[in-house]
Amino acid sequence: MKSKTPKESYAISTHLVLPNETNLLGNLMGGRLLHWMDITAAIAAHRHSQRVVVTASVNHVSFERAIRLGDYVTIEAKVSRAFNTSMEVFLDVTVETGFTGERIKSNDATYVFVAVDQVGKPIEIPQLTPETELEKERYATALQRRQLSLLLSGKIDPDDAPELKELFFSKKKK
Amino acid sequence: MKSKTPKESYAISTHLVLPNETNLLGNLMGGRLLHWMDITAAIAAHRHSQRVVVTASVNHVSFERAIRLGDYVTIEAKVSRAFNTSMEVFLDVTVETGFTGERIKSNDATYVFVAVDQVGKPIEIPQLTPETELEKERYATALQRRQLSLLLSGKIDPDDAPELKELFFSKKKK
Amino acid sequence: MKSKTPKESYAISTHLVLPNETNLLGNLMGGRLLHWMDITAAIAAHRHSQRVVVTASVNHVSFERAIRLGDYVTIEAKVSRAFNTSMEVFLDVTVETGFTGERIKSNDATYVFVAVDQVGKPIEIPQLTPETELEKERYATALQRRQLSLLLSGKIDPDDAPELKELFFSKKKK
Amino acid sequence: MKSKTPKESYAISTHLVLPNETNLLGNLMGGRLLHWMDITAAIAAHRHSQRVVVTASVNHVSFERAIRLGDYVTIEAKVSRAFNTSMEVFLDVTVETGFTGERIKSNDATYVFVAVDQVGKPIEIPQLTPETELEKERYATALQRRQLSLLLSGKIDPDDAPELKELFFSKKKK
Amino acid sequence: MKSKTPKESYAISTHLVLPNETNLLGNLMGGRLLHWMDITAAIAAHRHSQRVVVTASVNHVSFERAIRLGDYVTIEAKVSRAFNTSMEVFLDVTVETGFTGERIKSNDATYVFVAVDQVGKPIEIPQLTPETELEKERYATALQRRQLSLLLSGKIDPDDAPELKELFFSKKKK
Amino acid sequence: MKSKTPKESYAISTHLVLPNETNLLGNLMGGRLLHWMDITAAIAAHRHSQRVVVTASVNHVSFERAIRLGDYVTIEAKVSRAFNTSMEVFLDVTVETGFTGERIKSNDATYVFVAVDQVGKPIEIPQLTPETELEKERYATALQRRQLSLLLSGKIDPDDAPELKELFFSKKKK
Repeated sequence: MKSKTPKESYAISTHLVLPNETNLLGNLMGGRLLHWMDITAAIAAHRHSQRVVVTASVNHVSFERAIRLGDYVTIEAKVSRAFNTSMEVFLDVTVETGFTGERIKSNDATYVFVAVDQVGKPIEIPQLTPETELEKERYATALQRRQLSLLLSGKIDPDDAPELKELFFSKKKK
Repeated sequence: MKSKTPKESYAISTHLVLPNETNLLGNLMGGRLLHWMDITAAIAAHRHSQRVVVTASVNHVSFERAIRLGDYVTIEAKVSRAFNTSMEVFLDVTVETGFTGERIKSNDATYVFVAVDQVGKPIEIPQLTPETELEKERYATALQRRQLSLLLSGKIDPDDAPELKELFFSKKKK
Repeated sequence: MKSKTPKESYAISTHLVLPNETNLLGNLMGGRLLHWMDITAAIAAHRHSQRVVVTASVNHVSFERAIRLGDYVTIEAKVSRAFNTSMEVFLDVTVETGFTGERIKSNDATYVFVAVDQVGKPIEIPQLTPETELEKERYATALQRRQLSLLLSGKIDPDDAPELKELFFSKKKK
Repeated sequence: MKSKTPKESYAISTHLVLPNETNLLGNLMGGRLLHWMDITAAIAAHRHSQRVVVTASVNHVSFERAIRLGDYVTIEAKVSRAFNTSMEVFLDVTVETGFTGERIKSNDATYVFVAVDQVGKPIEIPQLTPETELEKERYATALQRRQLSLLLSGKIDPDDAPELKELFFSKKKK
Repeated sequence: MKSKTPKESYAISTHLVLPNETNLLGNLMGGRLLHWMDITAAIAAHRHSQRVVVTASVNHVSFERAIRLGDYVTIEAKVSRAFNTSMEVFLDVTVETGFTGERIKSNDATYVFVAVDQVGKPIEIPQLTPETELEKERYATALQRRQLSLLLSGKIDPDDAPELKELFFSKKKK
Repeated sequence: MKSKTPKESYAISTHLVLPNETNLLGNLMGGRLLHWMDITAAIAAHRHSQRVVVTASVNHVSFERAIRLGDYVTIEAKVSRAFNTSMEVFLDVTVETGFTGERIKSNDATYVFVAVDQVGKPIEIPQLTPETELEKERYATALQRRQLSLLLSGKIDPDDAPELKELFFSKKKK
């Protein structure tokens, strides 16, 4: 199976924040953004694997700033690393305010998807060859996120996660 | 401000999986479950704080088994630890199949909410006093999850997270 | 077929009132509440019968007080009486206001469901054994509501409804 | 305030039954139909009163036959009687199957609405002058339904409901 | 196949403009109205052809005046001309304001539908016999709209569209 | 006011076709696509004008091929010409099938938007300077589409539309 680049899986979607998606203060509810990110990430995972994909996990997501009614939310997704049957998708979220058009970074996130066949059995996918500096960095740290995920769900021991330890002993992240 | 117990914030919601919430294999999409969990968790956070609450972060969530069209998804939420202005909500998700009624654990998750006043400024909330064994365990580990969250977003150093290290050196989780 | 208790069918759901569900005065529209009650009642009916269930009728429902945008609506449902292939579900609705957390009774309602097999034919269900005082009272009055329903749809004569007459000659209801 | 005729309040709406509105057997869920009827009835009540209207109650509704995915549901509503600040709306529901176009009566229902001013206080509305035979019959029986509703909610005694007794001692209904 | 009249295909639907369908100024978004018109037009096309119908094209639509939150939008549709396997549906949209009940013409539009069999292949439909003056005028101009549509999509030459030229040289339209 | 280029207004959105958006044959309903296109086009119009924008009209749209349940629909929008207070947005729609990933052109469309101030009054917008060959061609033909639109709504005479005549006498379109 031929390796692919991150840009081959690139997916993007823009959403207008409507009243039903906001709380009493007029801010976008976090769960709705998680939902939108899942769909955009699934498109990227599908473009990489050309298979039906199912969400396997979501890594830690922070919502740093409020997104307002009438704002436009842009979600960009690319596969950041492929494993045997699963792949990590990295998402970057930016927001433009409805009136001024100012465009700012809102947050990022990583989702993991598994590719499955018609009966839902995991199936092998192409490997990923990162191209840009950012893609390479995300490719490298994906392994750490995977070890953290396996550790958090009790599937491996800390000793099986050497790359993860690095993460915890490097001061600067992202 | 008087301390509260987890059961005072208990919130529960049951959802029927409808066609629009499933993928081509007829399985519930992960993003939709994340959205439902956010709303149920917000109700628990609101019951604890009696304030408007906003989602601050979602910790790592795994989707271990497929949830099917026609299944009933029950989400139960309780505040597991209160900090100054934020609180962690622990969610347990169970699923009943539409035809047989078998009821099984699907997954769990933790969301963090911040209580805010009318202009969106964080505001102090009551502390939490866990009662049952499970509540006490979740209260204890909430600190580790908070340290992990701060570490992952680059806000603290590993040296500032002593409880987290414990987590990584205990073999069994949850 | 083994008899079941009301608590075995207990279903509960909590909803946040969002903008799209309110009228120009910011109050929850009655039809939306009827819709939510139907889904929660169907879950209770399904839990009792372990069958696909279809709504057969809704008894008289009053909306006594306005429910506001941002309120949390909790719907609790239990089967109140089982007949051959149909069952009555009793619903209690309470409301918490978004800002103060005050929790008050909103209204109650009864829906009737029929259990059906794969081709939609009605199928026998377990009988119900009420346990608490309230469950026993609702079990008893369910017969009157059934007679009223049959009478209103022209399927029986007043003479076939002796228990109903009692209802009309007892001063106090509910 | 000038009296109005039922046809001045006539409202009609047609809906296509989509997948999300059906159960596992592909039949329209009862709660969705109750929701659609509420909106169409509200339009009729608004046309009669030219005021914001709120649902006060729904009388007994039976769902006699299954409505299928892809069917077209037509809901017709007219005010059937006006009281001081409230009015009853009578709804007739017909269904056309997606493939053959056969058009059959599905069910009928009555909803009661209250007209309110800008702060939600009930406000006087025009009286109704029925014109056709059917409108006159529905106008007459509306009083009985109102007495039954007041009786069921414990607001009047059976002795205060003379017209209702007639209903129960006439063999044929509707 | 027996010819039909426009009134046999008459379809009507009324919608309440809810918050989620409006922009930051509280006006109905154009795309939502296009969506509602498509569904009502499909019902008319189905009533004429008794077949599954698919939207083939939409002619030029202008939105002359803003429709407000809380307004009622009524869409009326009738087949205006039938061709071999396709038909044009003419839509008239009127709006009533939520508070005053004033009812005004909003806009009109024409959609073209194709009738298809179970595998999606176009299939012959009944011809249309217009009855009223307005129906006859719309029947006549439908041919011009069809030629314009074919011309715009490059399927015919101007020389193949004699009726269209008339349209362009008559001063008054609609 | 400084002129802008089409790429400054570029907006893109990708949608997964879910069950509720399809007809009985499993094809995306035309009205839903019109709705999605309106939102994406509004984002482009907003990016050009930095104002609230309202849909003024939609030009002729053809749906040449069926889009299937599970397909991914990508909508790309750029302002193609700016007038005083209005602007034309050109949309290109492509479709990827859910299983094979094949990506094909589906259709194109043009929407016209007006920029308005806080009270809904039209307001001046920046001019557009096309850069690529395709942008220049679309810029040129926008004038013809505008004349056609004005002619169809009876606001100008054919003699006021010299560029339009060219369109009708050139054999090839798009």
